[in-house]
Amino acid sequence: MEPARDTPAVILLSGGLDSATVLAVAGDMGFRRHAISFDYGQRHVLELEAARRVAAAAGVMEHRIVRIDLSAAGGFGHSALTDSVPVPKDRPASAGVPATYVPARNTIFLSIALGYAETIGAGDIFIGVNAVDYSGYPDCRPEFIRAFQVLANVATAAAVQRGQRFTIHAPLLTLTKAQIIRLGLDMGVDYSLTHSCYDPSGDGAACGHCDACRLRLAGFAQVGVKDPARYRG
Amino acid sequence: MEPARDTPAVILLSGGLDSATVLAVAGDMGFRRHAISFDYGQRHVLELEAARRVAAAAGVMEHRIVRIDLSAAGGFGHSALTDSVPVPKDRPASAGVPATYVPARNTIFLSIALGYAETIGAGDIFIGVNAVDYSGYPDCRPEFIRAFQVLANVATAAAVQRGQRFTIHAPLLTLTKAQIIRLGLDMGVDYSLTHSCYDPSGDGAACGHCDACRLRLAGFAQVGVKDPARYRG
Repeated sequence: MEPARDTPAVILLSGGLDSATVLAVAGDMGFRRHAISFDYGQRHVLELEAARRVAAAAGVMEHRIVRIDLSAAGGFGHSALTDSVPVPKDRPASAGVPATYVPARNTIFLSIALGYAETIGAGDIFIGVNAVDYSGYPDCRPEFIRAFQVLANVATAAAVQRGQRFTIHAPLLTLTKAQIIRLGLDMGVDYSLTHSCYDPSGDGAACGHCDACRLRLAGFAQVGVKDPARYRG
Repeated sequence: MEPARDTPAVILLSGGLDSATVLAVAGDMGFRRHAISFDYGQRHVLELEAARRVAAAAGVMEHRIVRIDLSAAGGFGHSALTDSVPVPKDRPASAGVPATYVPARNTIFLSIALGYAETIGAGDIFIGVNAVDYSGYPDCRPEFIRAFQVLANVATAAAVQRGQRFTIHAPLLTLTKAQIIRLGLDMGVDYSLTHSCYDPSGDGAACGHCDACRLRLAGFAQVGVKDPARYRG
């Protein structure tokens, strides 16, 4: 079912491989795309720069960057993404919740995306969560997406008083990293614009050893395509 | 059932009459209180100043203020609380969603409070929503609170992997404004520290005519106690 050409959708865009793919999926479905990114005290701004590049290349209608001080006053949680905790390298795949877990992160992001969606009259919100490769994150599971969708439909004036129906789209939920990359390549996504590494060097080169780099490299290897990201060393 | 003296709870504190009462309720129940307030581009800082006063007077363990740029890039929604839309005065009580509605506001606030709660090991979150007097706000209803509690218990590592159980307490949900004030006075809440007005003058005096002032004044009148807030004129 293709939406009307002017049907707006909100897409959460991190600047990584997954959300760049989701942005393409939403475009492929015919939505008018409004991207939203978050500046939440990441240790580096490379992610946001990548988000800007990806949004521009996709020709989105609008790209908003929302700042939240999750790292203010000591930070929410002690995450390697916002604090000075070392990023884990070459760790086994099934080691539980990674140090990169940020408490309630996707809940917070989806909530703000919901406010944005209600404001622009969008009922469709896209998020690039994935339950296969990132099973350590509780807010990347189908149960979470379903619960948020239920919440969205009781939380807003649009849903309760104006008959808007909110749908949370998580098109990558059950795909492997290789399947995501294949999907994106089929749609013409330029993955050289994306940034995945949790521990890049000063010039933006990826480390190749953090969880994000390893998943990404393994995915490209499975697809049989060279990862266009720049790695150091 | 009284919690152990060192059981932490997160309390959303706006600086208004309702959240000041909820803060007292949580204290009365024996929780170690961690208050959280939001700086989201309110047109004036009087609310946050009131939140600081109320938190200090209550002797909370900690009071965090989180900044979110909901008003950045044009604002989320066109709310009289964040934009330059005129605050409605002396409007009928049942006029639907007020202009002061901020899309997904309580969803966003509770999400950040959830991240904070998970960080400090709290399973109890208190919010001063009220379904009686503010029926125009969809995110002040029992359905909303229930849906958020379900979400919290699938969204976090604490709940999914460590057996934490999140409870969203909304002790004012079915109380009238007069009942809330009576409850607070019984617990010794000093309402002169609170701020409710949507349209105060430069020196902080309340207008007496916006929705918030009218509800508050009517509540005190019903209780038969003079509102200690300062009104202009």
